[in-house]
Amino acid sequence: MSVHSVKIVQVLESLLAGNDQSAARNRERLDAAGILAVNVMAGPGAGKTSLIVKTIEALRGRARVGVIEGDIAGVIDTEKVLAAGARDALQINTGGNCHLEAGMVDRALDGLDLADLDVLVIENVGNLVCPTHWALGEHLKLCLLGAAEGHDKPIKYPEMFAICDVIVLNKIDLIDLVDFDLAAFTESVRALNPAAPIFEVSCRTGLGITAWADWVMEQRERRRPSPLPGAR
Amino acid sequence: MSVHSVKIVQVLESLLAGNDQSAARNRERLDAAGILAVNVMAGPGAGKTSLIVKTIEALRGRARVGVIEGDIAGVIDTEKVLAAGARDALQINTGGNCHLEAGMVDRALDGLDLADLDVLVIENVGNLVCPTHWALGEHLKLCLLGAAEGHDKPIKYPEMFAICDVIVLNKIDLIDLVDFDLAAFTESVRALNPAAPIFEVSCRTGLGITAWADWVMEQRERRRPSPLPGAR
Repeated sequence: MSVHSVKIVQVLESLLAGNDQSAARNRERLDAAGILAVNVMAGPGAGKTSLIVKTIEALRGRARVGVIEGDIAGVIDTEKVLAAGARDALQINTGGNCHLEAGMVDRALDGLDLADLDVLVIENVGNLVCPTHWALGEHLKLCLLGAAEGHDKPIKYPEMFAICDVIVLNKIDLIDLVDFDLAAFTESVRALNPAAPIFEVSCRTGLGITAWADWVMEQRERRRPSPLPGAR
Repeated sequence: MSVHSVKIVQVLESLLAGNDQSAARNRERLDAAGILAVNVMAGPGAGKTSLIVKTIEALRGRARVGVIEGDIAGVIDTEKVLAAGARDALQINTGGNCHLEAGMVDRALDGLDLADLDVLVIENVGNLVCPTHWALGEHLKLCLLGAAEGHDKPIKYPEMFAICDVIVLNKIDLIDLVDFDLAAFTESVRALNPAAPIFEVSCRTGLGITAWADWVMEQRERRRPSPLPGAR
């Protein structure tokens, strides 16, 4: 809308080109290691860490899960996912940056033993806007929404809902208490994104987590040329 | 963390200097019109529009409230606040920009009859990170959090909680359901921001709204050299 915005976009475009190159290199490293990488994006407090914790628990014995935690500050999420059984986890503190970038993930990959992982979950900074522009090398972009945030979010943050590969609607146990209109939500998502599966879960009660975790395993097997070894 | 981040910051600094100048001009216009301006910042779905609606209703007959609605896309919030009794309202669609800037507000002020307003509420884009950097000319920076977002948000988004003048904790009716630890929240806020008052409200039930609205009126009177006229 302002001259300032236009300037930002021009700078952003050249930064994004560099980011895409870095993301492509991350993808090659992940593919070489046979790892499925999921970029978890959501606003603050939608339940990103809770979903990751529940996914780790549901995949126990089926997949070794590593986690990269992106936060402006703090390490509490990394402590939580390690306590939940993450095979390995690494915290990125962005120091004010409102999204993860591929270069940050590149350095984080250096700090993980990739041969020891099947699935890598990358928790982005809580933000429904900025992370959409920055590829990290992930195979799947996940958009997570908490029911308490309201069913109108696809209308207000259309790009996030348009670009994601899968949507998880969390806090489904609160749906009646917070007047969340599931039909209106689904309709506005479908106008932006006809194909992405929508999983309804409650990380608090565990509802829907098994179906979600099974789908993650299917996605990993689809992308993996050689047969999976047995449970570990 | 990356070279890219450093480049962004350098560009951002010069943009921010221009923004600050524009914000200072906005402030002059608001002061000349005797308007108290509040910049409402929060993550997506914290209840920004609901708080504005409840504030308009609580100030009916006491203050004429105008609203500038900032969204990436959509006009549903402007329709809601007009229906609630806003004296005037104007929608800014940022077209992807993750925060409002002073230049956008400057243009929005051109579209409002400032002589007809006592309070101007500016609803920022739902984002706990980026809006912190961009002054709009407001008198008060409000940080709104929904209890469903979790009590750990000050630790993860410290700048927002540090720079704000007032904090509103919404969805207080859900506090037990979502395991929100009020003592931990207050402690982490106070480590960042010793002075900002914290209001506990539920826009759904109306709890705490009167105290909040009374405080807004006090803020306006404190900043106003001439005595207020009677109720309108």
